[in-house]
Amino acid sequence: MIVAMQEQATEEQIQHVTERMMELGFKVHRTTGAVQTILAGVGTPTAFDVKDFQVMDGVAEAYRITSPYKLAGRGFRPEGTVIRFKNGVTIGNSEAVVMAGPCSVENREQIFTAAEQVKAAGAKFLRGGAFKPRSSPYSFQGLGLEGLKLLREVGETTGLLIISEVMEISQIELMMPYVDVFQVGARNMQNFNLLRELGQVRKPVLLKRGIAATMEELLLSAEYILSGGNYEVMLCERGIRTFETYTRNTMDISAIPVLKKLSHLPVLGDPSHGVGLRDKVPAMARAAIAAGADGLLIEVHPNPEKAVSDGAQTLFPEQFAKLMQELRLIATAIGRSIA
Amino acid sequence: MIVAMQEQATEEQIQHVTERMMELGFKVHRTTGAVQTILAGVGTPTAFDVKDFQVMDGVAEAYRITSPYKLAGRGFRPEGTVIRFKNGVTIGNSEAVVMAGPCSVENREQIFTAAEQVKAAGAKFLRGGAFKPRSSPYSFQGLGLEGLKLLREVGETTGLLIISEVMEISQIELMMPYVDVFQVGARNMQNFNLLRELGQVRKPVLLKRGIAATMEELLLSAEYILSGGNYEVMLCERGIRTFETYTRNTMDISAIPVLKKLSHLPVLGDPSHGVGLRDKVPAMARAAIAAGADGLLIEVHPNPEKAVSDGAQTLFPEQFAKLMQELRLIATAIGRSIA
Amino acid sequence: MIVAMQEQATEEQIQHVTERMMELGFKVHRTTGAVQTILAGVGTPTAFDVKDFQVMDGVAEAYRITSPYKLAGRGFRPEGTVIRFKNGVTIGNSEAVVMAGPCSVENREQIFTAAEQVKAAGAKFLRGGAFKPRSSPYSFQGLGLEGLKLLREVGETTGLLIISEVMEISQIELMMPYVDVFQVGARNMQNFNLLRELGQVRKPVLLKRGIAATMEELLLSAEYILSGGNYEVMLCERGIRTFETYTRNTMDISAIPVLKKLSHLPVLGDPSHGVGLRDKVPAMARAAIAAGADGLLIEVHPNPEKAVSDGAQTLFPEQFAKLMQELRLIATAIGRSIA
Amino acid sequence: MIVAMQEQATEEQIQHVTERMMELGFKVHRTTGAVQTILAGVGTPTAFDVKDFQVMDGVAEAYRITSPYKLAGRGFRPEGTVIRFKNGVTIGNSEAVVMAGPCSVENREQIFTAAEQVKAAGAKFLRGGAFKPRSSPYSFQGLGLEGLKLLREVGETTGLLIISEVMEISQIELMMPYVDVFQVGARNMQNFNLLRELGQVRKPVLLKRGIAATMEELLLSAEYILSGGNYEVMLCERGIRTFETYTRNTMDISAIPVLKKLSHLPVLGDPSHGVGLRDKVPAMARAAIAAGADGLLIEVHPNPEKAVSDGAQTLFPEQFAKLMQELRLIATAIGRSIA
Repeated sequence: MIVAMQEQATEEQIQHVTERMMELGFKVHRTTGAVQTILAGVGTPTAFDVKDFQVMDGVAEAYRITSPYKLAGRGFRPEGTVIRFKNGVTIGNSEAVVMAGPCSVENREQIFTAAEQVKAAGAKFLRGGAFKPRSSPYSFQGLGLEGLKLLREVGETTGLLIISEVMEISQIELMMPYVDVFQVGARNMQNFNLLRELGQVRKPVLLKRGIAATMEELLLSAEYILSGGNYEVMLCERGIRTFETYTRNTMDISAIPVLKKLSHLPVLGDPSHGVGLRDKVPAMARAAIAAGADGLLIEVHPNPEKAVSDGAQTLFPEQFAKLMQELRLIATAIGRSIA
Repeated sequence: MIVAMQEQATEEQIQHVTERMMELGFKVHRTTGAVQTILAGVGTPTAFDVKDFQVMDGVAEAYRITSPYKLAGRGFRPEGTVIRFKNGVTIGNSEAVVMAGPCSVENREQIFTAAEQVKAAGAKFLRGGAFKPRSSPYSFQGLGLEGLKLLREVGETTGLLIISEVMEISQIELMMPYVDVFQVGARNMQNFNLLRELGQVRKPVLLKRGIAATMEELLLSAEYILSGGNYEVMLCERGIRTFETYTRNTMDISAIPVLKKLSHLPVLGDPSHGVGLRDKVPAMARAAIAAGADGLLIEVHPNPEKAVSDGAQTLFPEQFAKLMQELRLIATAIGRSIA
Repeated sequence: MIVAMQEQATEEQIQHVTERMMELGFKVHRTTGAVQTILAGVGTPTAFDVKDFQVMDGVAEAYRITSPYKLAGRGFRPEGTVIRFKNGVTIGNSEAVVMAGPCSVENREQIFTAAEQVKAAGAKFLRGGAFKPRSSPYSFQGLGLEGLKLLREVGETTGLLIISEVMEISQIELMMPYVDVFQVGARNMQNFNLLRELGQVRKPVLLKRGIAATMEELLLSAEYILSGGNYEVMLCERGIRTFETYTRNTMDISAIPVLKKLSHLPVLGDPSHGVGLRDKVPAMARAAIAAGADGLLIEVHPNPEKAVSDGAQTLFPEQFAKLMQELRLIATAIGRSIA
Repeated sequence: MIVAMQEQATEEQIQHVTERMMELGFKVHRTTGAVQTILAGVGTPTAFDVKDFQVMDGVAEAYRITSPYKLAGRGFRPEGTVIRFKNGVTIGNSEAVVMAGPCSVENREQIFTAAEQVKAAGAKFLRGGAFKPRSSPYSFQGLGLEGLKLLREVGETTGLLIISEVMEISQIELMMPYVDVFQVGARNMQNFNLLRELGQVRKPVLLKRGIAATMEELLLSAEYILSGGNYEVMLCERGIRTFETYTRNTMDISAIPVLKKLSHLPVLGDPSHGVGLRDKVPAMARAAIAAGADGLLIEVHPNPEKAVSDGAQTLFPEQFAKLMQELRLIATAIGRSIA
């Protein structure tokens, strides 16, 4: 930590700050300049709040130097994390992986049709919600266990891996036999109790960035899972909330190269939620791959106009097939591949 | 719902949109102007997504007219909701109520001292966290049940009502005997499973606005609780996330008059989280009362510099006492009172 | 400036950074910790970009310590700036000053009526636009010189001081005889050529914060005016752009205490633009005064429903008169006054 | 325009709204439903403010249906605008065009070296600032006329077209002989006097989106130029201001497909300002091309570490050359080309 004292700080104030730093476990190096005094705290106390120093008398600025996450940082595993699945699919390697399917599992025919369509186009994962977080209590809330069973059955039939969202601690055990990846939605990115429990399971987790979460907060949320011993975490950019309302969210494409630098974890993009408008989804999917994403999460439905949820941002199967062709060429342009 | 077709929309497109509206249960009135056709959907289908229409071919704009929440709207109870507590304290009346205390319950001495200090200054509620949502897994996570017991004990001793945060469904039953108000934090504003469970209890809930939540989303989250039959909900503005980083959040004081107009529920302000800097908290507390808040939630600690959490935004007891004097005068200026 | 090197930074990288710091005029103090090296740059080079260091190899973080503005900082005039007008009105003293009037000068009758109404209620300044910055080229653009003449005439008649917006360098000389304060609108907060010219005049300037401007940027824009020798600058918070769309802008009330601490310049609030909705303007005006504003800018029109611009956020004269009564009581509550 | 009345609106209120709509020139169609009355205003008054209706008594919601811009809308020129330059270069065609060069013109050697480097890699335009908008009055403000002359000379020598920023009306005539495209910076996007003057010249204008500007505001600013008769306008996304501070701005890649749909004007991307960090610029440049941008504006300097401005976001020449190779492949993937 660095504390820069105000120009007019008194010696007493400097001593008071120095003592608080030492109480936290820092060794303090003092630099006295012509204008102001700077206190450099050396050492790595586990947890402290730099804001406590910012409001102390005589302090001009206080900065945390070391990042507050450890296991999620690139330095923990410089070569990058690769997550391997039973059927040989990997995430975090040179091949970018596409996860596709409807927002919600609606019925047997819908999910089987969707699965065949996305598989034919090259997807490796089927996505589909069984438990749905809906802003309104009056909206469709998902099929629950019945939906999970359908997902597993279609996964067995097609060979697609299954990803589905977990919203609540009690759902973890219920979902365990049915999914290959637990998805944590943006609204639960800081549901710390849920994250801590997911640190105890031994199954990959895809953690979506909250709509108002900084990079650091996303990595701290990942740290909750990693610190429980579950190292198979993927990060996912899915749009942040800004002043612009034309799009549902503003997909922060720059989060992809930023997170790849800060962390060793694979980074995916979700253009469907990122932009929220069907005809803009392909452009954003291409942008995410061009920016270096390790994979994509895309909503596809046999008939988006009849989808029970998120229809406006869901691709028609033929749009998805065409997009996959473009994505393959773009992946090649930057030395990667898509199956 | 209103759908404005594009100028060049074809008759076929207009028919297609009309049919979809009728399928949802709308009666459709068509206005054909010189330039464009407008379709007015009359009726109140329970749930539909206006975005599904925005992306349909030939559509220029689509608007939802009726608000998506019912029970939380001002129209449901035009006279306003008043929440009454056992000791005669009410929230939602002409008297504004102040809830104060430390961020976290730390130990017996700390919480008893804090309680006496805030009571002496005029607070009616003691706040204090037993379960703490912390961005970092390495930060203090709260005393848990022990903290709840201390809160109840100090409540009995001082006559202060108790408010404390619930983070997880399993904590509801645990907390039930110890608290007078369940607080739902900003990060859990869209933890819909938790909200639904809180709809089943018969104890008031204070629901904080998420840092990136619109007014409508906040009211829809309140609707989750109300629709379960728990009508004793208070809303709380505690700062939103904007581009400005000087303050921890940007406290949206205008949310107070806006929510008072849109909803019958009492509206409180939390200047401590709203601004995050001790020396700015009094100004924001005064602003919230001047803008019509039904109450305040303020962090006060016997020694903020030694607080285990949120110290930088916590008032010294003497600052709080002085603030309460100012608040009384401001309340009077707008025809209200503070005890 | 402080540069914290990465843990794995090489000696060569540390030397390279040190040299660049010295080239800029810093004396460099080096602290070598067990984990990382910290370089403290002592001295005050006039201008440098801390981001240049953030991207250098081996650098973890780089911070500017001294604020980039000098004349606008509180330290330059700790006792605060008071601006005095010919008729004895002062801004920056214990009395808060209200400036009121229509968005645009429309015609003789309108502006005379408005002037009498706001004067009767206690305003000291008449506001009114002669040159209007309008988002659309098809909207009313102001009466220009004719409007200025009307303002001066009504000012002479009523004794009200005149404030009006300057949009362009060529308007400065034109406006000089007619106004008592030049208003710089939010859209021109970073029109640096205009600011520089305003530094050359000897008449007060009210500088509005841009809708996406940080505190630091606002103070740097003030610095452009101050560094030209014009020290009579007022700052004005008028709402920032956030994700919330219910209100026109989000009025950042916390900017008032923050700017009062960072700077010696008087700080006003503009609740009309801040919230954009007539029925919420009084609550925000009260909040601004409660938070310590040195004055207010409020839109009032004899008949807001017929106003050619900004009608939705303009008060009826009787609303304004009632508001002034409340403001007087609130000012008193915090030891200030309003005439 | 559509006005949806409140459920409890009185007949008198409905009449009052109807009359105001008719005064503006609308023909009003009334739909009376079981729950509420809807008033559809048919016709196209040149300018009105929908907010004036939102605050009228009895009104629930009011929506503008027709877009407030005419000439900038896609409907005005459905086939899209192509801007042609003397040497055969076009913007808005299948070929994407890259404009590159240093932030500021610093001296003869620097700008000639930069020009040769970017030309060799495939750029068609040289960018370089002669007048610099700087947040601080103490930063380098540009070489002015001398810089313009150097730009023209290097343009003649290399065959590169020249783009440079205009900040002020008086600079237009001065710059006219020296530049091929006038660049309007983000801070001047709503400097309406400047825009109006640029509508009078017959030279292309590149208009950057303000950091807090919506799509609609950007198109209205373009409308200012177009309505003066200058139809050669390009739009440029260069990052918006959000809560995220890791990057300088958040580059809104989705603005590219959105603007391409709403408008016929060419759309470029500026990844240098968009992300502000050199090592992330290539990823964002690739993303912009993948999303369909008609061109890019990229900062390149012979020695970025010694650049007088924007060094942190400026590419080394060899980074730029490598990037151009990738961009060519990505352009091909979506059926376009880059020279």
